Amino acid sequence: MDRGHGLNILVDIGKTHVKNTGKISSVRLIVQKYGGTSVGSVDRIKAVAQKVYASHRSGVKTVVTLSAMGGETNRLIQLASQFHDDPNPRELDALLSTGEQVSISLLCMALQNLGVEARSYTGHQVRISTDSAFGKARIESIDAEHIQEDLDSGLVVVVAGFQGVDERDNITTLGRGGSDTTAVALASVLNADECQIFTDVDGVYTTDPRIVPDARRLSEITFEEMIEMASQGSKVLQIRAVEFAGKYNVPLRVMSSFVDGPGTLITLEDEDYMEKPVVSGIAFNRDEAKLTVRGIPDQPGVAAKVLVPISEANIEIDVIVQNVAKDNSADITFTLNKNDLRRAESILKGIANDLGAKEVSADGKIAKVSIVGVGMRSHAGVAAKMFACLASEGINIQLITTSEIKIAVIIEERYLELAVRALHTEYNLENSTAF
Amino acid sequence: MDRGHGLNILVDIGKTHVKNTGKISSVRLIVQKYGGTSVGSVDRIKAVAQKVYASHRSGVKTVVTLSAMGGETNRLIQLASQFHDDPNPRELDALLSTGEQVSISLLCMALQNLGVEARSYTGHQVRISTDSAFGKARIESIDAEHIQEDLDSGLVVVVAGFQGVDERDNITTLGRGGSDTTAVALASVLNADECQIFTDVDGVYTTDPRIVPDARRLSEITFEEMIEMASQGSKVLQIRAVEFAGKYNVPLRVMSSFVDGPGTLITLEDEDYMEKPVVSGIAFNRDEAKLTVRGIPDQPGVAAKVLVPISEANIEIDVIVQNVAKDNSADITFTLNKNDLRRAESILKGIANDLGAKEVSADGKIAKVSIVGVGMRSHAGVAAKMFACLASEGINIQLITTSEIKIAVIIEERYLELAVRALHTEYNLENSTAF
Repeated sequence: MDRGHGLNILVDIGKTHVKNTGKISSVRLIVQKYGGTSVGSVDRIKAVAQKVYASHRSGVKTVVTLSAMGGETNRLIQLASQFHDDPNPRELDALLSTGEQVSISLLCMALQNLGVEARSYTGHQVRISTDSAFGKARIESIDAEHIQEDLDSGLVVVVAGFQGVDERDNITTLGRGGSDTTAVALASVLNADECQIFTDVDGVYTTDPRIVPDARRLSEITFEEMIEMASQGSKVLQIRAVEFAGKYNVPLRVMSSFVDGPGTLITLEDEDYMEKPVVSGIAFNRDEAKLTVRGIPDQPGVAAKVLVPISEANIEIDVIVQNVAKDNSADITFTLNKNDLRRAESILKGIANDLGAKEVSADGKIAKVSIVGVGMRSHAGVAAKMFACLASEGINIQLITTSEIKIAVIIEERYLELAVRALHTEYNLENSTAF
Repeated sequence: MDRGHGLNILVDIGKTHVKNTGKISSVRLIVQKYGGTSVGSVDRIKAVAQKVYASHRSGVKTVVTLSAMGGETNRLIQLASQFHDDPNPRELDALLSTGEQVSISLLCMALQNLGVEARSYTGHQVRISTDSAFGKARIESIDAEHIQEDLDSGLVVVVAGFQGVDERDNITTLGRGGSDTTAVALASVLNADECQIFTDVDGVYTTDPRIVPDARRLSEITFEEMIEMASQGSKVLQIRAVEFAGKYNVPLRVMSSFVDGPGTLITLEDEDYMEKPVVSGIAFNRDEAKLTVRGIPDQPGVAAKVLVPISEANIEIDVIVQNVAKDNSADITFTLNKNDLRRAESILKGIANDLGAKEVSADGKIAKVSIVGVGMRSHAGVAAKMFACLASEGINIQLITTSEIKIAVIIEERYLELAVRALHTEYNLENSTAF
């Protein structure tokens, strides 16, 4: 896939493409994505037009992806709820997709008012083909022909985020935050030099600055770290978009719509990670809750018996721990989103008898704190240091889960801020200059 | 084109089709169209769902076309105007088309809530192919395959009015009131038994009941009469839709969204028109204004010299009269929409010297009153009766224009109501029982 030859064919983005890094391109191509807050009002859309204009004027081929104007998607969902308690997913997607169609046409008008030729495309107009999973569809391919032609003619191209069409031409949406995924998919298909995600923060921080005022913007972070940071609750980017960007090697940059600055570049993991700080950031999540089923007679398949009904109810679970007590009965504890707690609890209480379980207990007052860093791989003792730090603050650890580049613990929710601050200091994140 | 065999192919509605009137169909097919007022709120959309449900439950295959929720199109135009004084037509159409997309998905949800299976389609999803005249596109064909399949499966099909796509997949709109045209086009392609236009009036009246309280609803009116009534200012239906229905022999019925009743059926002119009343209705239009160019040296091509610049400015004119004075100079008078008066006046003043004209005068205080009826063809003296009636009321006639089934006069605006009432009585329209 070589941008030099133009991509005026249907490109299957299911195939990994090799970025032609050796080639020096005279004209760069950038995909910019602006979220709902960035296009939340007439004035903000005009401000986005100015930013796009600046990129275009500098000679960069510019493709823009937009979300719906802030609040519009919720307004439409609320409207739908007045007609049906559980709106038909196909019709809901047709309804919601209008939000982005409005914002892309308005941005084109704003650009045209600045003298920039611009053209908008909905999901069906550039055939953003997806599967038929309404509300959470996955992009399968994009027909870049019109976009490439327009770019070659000097136009700015504005594509509706969040939406696509399935093979029957039904309108689909990619789920909340799906515009990020659209931007990455476009960047991949067009072999863009960079995919810039404009948001209301000016980059990825070592942790949430509202909790640790000394938190520092990272100039770079690896895709792997970013995924851990995102899934742990640093809600800068939709995790699927990050995974997608990593898979297709699309350089991703998180930037602010409101403040000029370089943002944070999300890179492929390089070979230098041994040089990097052990811990790059502290992530946390207040939205988790914990469910424990106690005293189940221990036998093979016990975990499945507990978790299958939860999964069948479409409830996602996060951390799972099973342990066997002295009396040979098993306890199974898992965490899930707070919103699903009551539903999951009632499912488990309904089957507790069949399981022979003694007790089902729910705890909504927990939080998860994680330390994340690719440097962890080459350093022993990171976990011990984390546990010691928390212990010295008198914080009890309820559950632990680890990956190669992350250690996460479940603690009482009321200690969350204390834990984040202590760990941020412990790993010297306010002063680190390695990035 | 025979509905019995299914219309699951691309049907070129440019060809006249012959309605298979000899065939008795076990299942009838009806296209219903509801305008902006009828879907102007959550409750009204729910009321439309009830009407559609009733049609569906009675065993009639039902296709519904909707406008945007009342006020939505204006809201979007106002939004666009904040970005550009003269928004790009392509982008404006993309923006405006969202209005219908919202209403069709909401109606489907409302129907599903009543237990009716329903599916919405945008212009691109049923390939309502149009030319590329953004803002006033003309429908070229519709792909009825999905609609036919859905109807055969027992679904209600809900199609976005007012919109289509051109051959490059650009979204187009048909212009104000274009949903009527969509409904007629669908009825034609699907060979529907009737196209029912639901609006806020319960039918076509002999004249506006606000002016003549005795005005009577007509149970039938011919297409030709309806076109004259509509173009003369009885704004019940978009004139293009009526012409279209007449051309393709689609039985059209105007009904009320709010009051049950048979409405007015718009029929092909039948052979019985000699039995019909001479005059079926009195139409009028307050929106016209008059421009007169006086004292132009009379020579061939004078009318063109006056009117070509007006036409090039996209100003439509209605009645035109040219007369030659004793001094061999010509006066040209024409009427146009009030909104265009100042612009046209300044164009003509700009060229008055070149024309050698003595004076350009504008009059915004005129109105047009017409008597309409197919019965006129077989009756002499209709015009004389009209002029005598107006004279007896002391109303001066400024201009006259006639067609086979219409006589229209321009009078001073302040006499409009008087003229309408007098003519309504003169032709005994409050008592006519011929329909």
